[in-house]
Amino acid sequence: MNTDRAEGVFVIAPTPFHSDGRIDESSVDRMTDFFLGAGVTGMTVLGQLGEAPKMDHAESVSIVKRVLNRAKVPVVVGVSAPGFAAMRALTQDVMAAGASGVMIAPPNTLRTDDSIVQYYRQASEAIGAGVPFVIQDYPLTFSVQMTPAVIRRIHTENPSCWFLKHEDWPGLEKISQLRAWEKDGSMRRLPILIGNNALFLDFEMERGADGANTGYCFPDMLVDVVRLSKAGKRDEAHDLFDAHLPLIRYEQQPGPGLAVRKYVMMRRGIIASDTLRKPGAALTPAARAEVDYLLARLSHKDPRARV
Amino acid sequence: MNTDRAEGVFVIAPTPFHSDGRIDESSVDRMTDFFLGAGVTGMTVLGQLGEAPKMDHAESVSIVKRVLNRAKVPVVVGVSAPGFAAMRALTQDVMAAGASGVMIAPPNTLRTDDSIVQYYRQASEAIGAGVPFVIQDYPLTFSVQMTPAVIRRIHTENPSCWFLKHEDWPGLEKISQLRAWEKDGSMRRLPILIGNNALFLDFEMERGADGANTGYCFPDMLVDVVRLSKAGKRDEAHDLFDAHLPLIRYEQQPGPGLAVRKYVMMRRGIIASDTLRKPGAALTPAARAEVDYLLARLSHKDPRARV
Amino acid sequence: MNTDRAEGVFVIAPTPFHSDGRIDESSVDRMTDFFLGAGVTGMTVLGQLGEAPKMDHAESVSIVKRVLNRAKVPVVVGVSAPGFAAMRALTQDVMAAGASGVMIAPPNTLRTDDSIVQYYRQASEAIGAGVPFVIQDYPLTFSVQMTPAVIRRIHTENPSCWFLKHEDWPGLEKISQLRAWEKDGSMRRLPILIGNNALFLDFEMERGADGANTGYCFPDMLVDVVRLSKAGKRDEAHDLFDAHLPLIRYEQQPGPGLAVRKYVMMRRGIIASDTLRKPGAALTPAARAEVDYLLARLSHKDPRARV
Amino acid sequence: MNTDRAEGVFVIAPTPFHSDGRIDESSVDRMTDFFLGAGVTGMTVLGQLGEAPKMDHAESVSIVKRVLNRAKVPVVVGVSAPGFAAMRALTQDVMAAGASGVMIAPPNTLRTDDSIVQYYRQASEAIGAGVPFVIQDYPLTFSVQMTPAVIRRIHTENPSCWFLKHEDWPGLEKISQLRAWEKDGSMRRLPILIGNNALFLDFEMERGADGANTGYCFPDMLVDVVRLSKAGKRDEAHDLFDAHLPLIRYEQQPGPGLAVRKYVMMRRGIIASDTLRKPGAALTPAARAEVDYLLARLSHKDPRARV
Repeated sequence: MNTDRAEGVFVIAPTPFHSDGRIDESSVDRMTDFFLGAGVTGMTVLGQLGEAPKMDHAESVSIVKRVLNRAKVPVVVGVSAPGFAAMRALTQDVMAAGASGVMIAPPNTLRTDDSIVQYYRQASEAIGAGVPFVIQDYPLTFSVQMTPAVIRRIHTENPSCWFLKHEDWPGLEKISQLRAWEKDGSMRRLPILIGNNALFLDFEMERGADGANTGYCFPDMLVDVVRLSKAGKRDEAHDLFDAHLPLIRYEQQPGPGLAVRKYVMMRRGIIASDTLRKPGAALTPAARAEVDYLLARLSHKDPRARV
Repeated sequence: MNTDRAEGVFVIAPTPFHSDGRIDESSVDRMTDFFLGAGVTGMTVLGQLGEAPKMDHAESVSIVKRVLNRAKVPVVVGVSAPGFAAMRALTQDVMAAGASGVMIAPPNTLRTDDSIVQYYRQASEAIGAGVPFVIQDYPLTFSVQMTPAVIRRIHTENPSCWFLKHEDWPGLEKISQLRAWEKDGSMRRLPILIGNNALFLDFEMERGADGANTGYCFPDMLVDVVRLSKAGKRDEAHDLFDAHLPLIRYEQQPGPGLAVRKYVMMRRGIIASDTLRKPGAALTPAARAEVDYLLARLSHKDPRARV
Repeated sequence: MNTDRAEGVFVIAPTPFHSDGRIDESSVDRMTDFFLGAGVTGMTVLGQLGEAPKMDHAESVSIVKRVLNRAKVPVVVGVSAPGFAAMRALTQDVMAAGASGVMIAPPNTLRTDDSIVQYYRQASEAIGAGVPFVIQDYPLTFSVQMTPAVIRRIHTENPSCWFLKHEDWPGLEKISQLRAWEKDGSMRRLPILIGNNALFLDFEMERGADGANTGYCFPDMLVDVVRLSKAGKRDEAHDLFDAHLPLIRYEQQPGPGLAVRKYVMMRRGIIASDTLRKPGAALTPAARAEVDYLLARLSHKDPRARV
Repeated sequence: MNTDRAEGVFVIAPTPFHSDGRIDESSVDRMTDFFLGAGVTGMTVLGQLGEAPKMDHAESVSIVKRVLNRAKVPVVVGVSAPGFAAMRALTQDVMAAGASGVMIAPPNTLRTDDSIVQYYRQASEAIGAGVPFVIQDYPLTFSVQMTPAVIRRIHTENPSCWFLKHEDWPGLEKISQLRAWEKDGSMRRLPILIGNNALFLDFEMERGADGANTGYCFPDMLVDVVRLSKAGKRDEAHDLFDAHLPLIRYEQQPGPGLAVRKYVMMRRGIIASDTLRKPGAALTPAARAEVDYLLARLSHKDPRARV
């Protein structure tokens, strides 16, 4: 595994369930094939929006294996846990099964720069210094604030640090700062893939991101925006992005956002059911009608949105 | 003051400063006139984005008086404070000067339903039971979660509760719940004006909001969207809203958001300088260029955006 | 299992490790025997201070089984987890092995009364309505504030709610309120065992607690204070308690507290090593000397403290 | 003002009110005289437990002046505020009246090392680089975690940084770390006075604190413990401290703690009424009886406690 590079779209995969809550394996397969067809360059499973905490160890491993069976791209596995023991156990099993690396979010009790740096040091030691890991920087959900300097320290200390899932908000200046440090030689290259449901993908690409690491219900759009942006087709990238922005914004809501994502993926035929495990809840009829309306409007601007 | 009603756009006014940080009174006047010309139905001054905590008591009162001199619409004044003494002192002075009511945000230490209800009870008692007050429900900034039931309790207990500045996120179901309770008779009518930089104004209007109480740099657009939505022109409302959404999203960022707002208002000629008092910071050149680009794109879709 | 009763001292058991971090099974045995000899009426394993998050599923189950082999008192198992799947998996395994019930702490993201009540409803559903569970009310660590009314709702809704591990701080009035509600018939009897390292055990007993559910390094003292207090020997209870208070206070510190506890238990010969798993850290030499000094002083007042 | 030194007991003064909530000026005088007679070396007014946020600007200034009239020791004034304008205004008025310095707590939204350092830099700039200021490090109340390195940065950057009100918990290692840095020359001398109701005064003195900056209802005891500890009379210091610990612990409770303090000071004849301004609440009868019992027990061990 070359941990110097990550680019394009590492899509965050939801976990498809049957309506009774069991894992829907054929939807896992269909979804994996769809992602590959859409041009993703990687996949992340068992992230926060993969409903990871709602699965036990055996289920977690089985999903990863199912995805690895078909994925021809690197697969990252979310292994965040309240303690290092569970993190280590899951990491060992999924790396043995063929995963390319793991993603680690900080526990929401960390409050000082040093405590964050120490956490990643101990986590890397726990999973093994040879296991590539992704820093998940998502203060909105995890309540942990990492300055660019903290990220640089983590990256510098840990050769197995693979890339940054950047989803701080606001976050544009953070990307610029990290890229400036790379340019002036005070930091080695850190691949940056952005998350936060791509709400700022347009400008994040222009600030220096390498791509996206998120799960918006039209990952094909993410692939195109990343491609257009890298090709310097700025207006085209923004035009496409803006067409999706009303829905991106709607899906980015914490709480109902995942239900929106699954509902649209169900309507697109990618997964069979939009079921969430508890405590997740289904969309209300009013919300569902709003998503339908957004999809109808989107279909006039982006043909692939005709679902 | 009729505290049963609030509708249209109660614009959140920023506080214009000279580049050295002094209050810019002629910009206050120009801004007030601009807002009136744009069709606002009310104004809120000294809110969070009015940089209220950066002004001392005398400055606060002077700004309110300056606005009251010209405003022909109700003026609400933010009086949130860490204790009731300062809240009472400011309330007395601004109500004596002609303000129509005050806005109160909960201190970010409140954690239980009862403690929130008690806080508003004591606050109302402190400022005087005759003073109309606005509940500011903005968990993203204040870390206080008010359920619909808590809002109903506050509204029911306090006859002087005027309206809800709704800026919870996600927040659509909250509006629907409150409206359902009004319909089934379990709650008296509560006017709802939405905030959060109008990020969900389109659907919030459809869920039952009465208007907006936010300060997006094109309040004229807010006025039009509210009008179109109330007139049942759904597609037109969304078309106009969607045209602005890339900029709305950019301005909604905590931190740089206010600098964006002031920068655009300066470019529009509404205020003379985009200066923020400390600890606020100016936009970086990169951010400024991004806003310029967003404005250029917007100008193709909404003629008033040609600045 | 009679879930109407819990009294005396349900000691919180630490998890003994060898100096290399492996579980020390013979120390588990010796510790269990010691607790029984000290007169505890129950044991709680895998609590927060049992370093639960640092063990994987298999280790967790093995410790519980080891304790169950010797314990002649009810054993409660901490099963708090970020999701219901892991909670359910551990609960099933330990209940099958003979545990009497489980302890559940709320995730530190809960912010409203309803969300807390719903969490316990869903947790109980997840583990099975027949499994007795303990509410852990520890805002200092979990940042979740439960009012007495919330506790009453949880207890009323869930017949399998066994007892309250009360460790709110301040917390005396909470006990009084719950007891008042029982007296006036608005709540069925809820056993209350107190935690928070027993810092207020003296007065909590007088307010109506049934005993303690904590792990202070002299659980024999806890047993005696509970007994004296129930026997109405107020001054004697306070005399004994006060003799230990300097050390109780020292051990109650978050962070080093558990290292203090293990160090004293090692010095008392109850466990072989005071090793903590990461991220826990050993006492500094200065702290160790302070504990030694406190023990020396204590030995003049309580003979069992001669270690 | 020599900002290189602070030692002994800088007592935190409560604000005495009449039972109707008005400031009780003769109690202010009597209290000030009592403190001087007890041997304090400084006074801090308008701290968190001085109910500062409950007073408006004019009241705040009047209390400071009243104290300054009689105090023959340096007086520090709490000027913490949500914005720099109010902080500057109060600082100017109290420094002009003769205060020796001000105390500044960080706003509870700060989350990174840099943001804390920047806050104190901007605060010092706002109040004037010549005004001695005290860092209040009280994470339990303010939710801001300052590492020793952050404190060193603040102290190094700001020549007007006077002393540290240390009330982190746990906090012993923090004192040792700061003293170690002074010893190895990597930090200039920082006076440290401890707070947190003196719950660890005994060991904090031994770790290198210069004294106390707290308001326990027997400040005379604080003076003696500091003196004994500095004189190397370790056992005597602990004996006296331990006699008070049951009450110290009781008074240290957030919420009712201040009511305890005022109640005891009223019983001691130092202030006329134990009234708190809202949202503060009086002790319940049960709590009052508990304090009475603690005082009765204390009177057997420390003669001055016969009240």
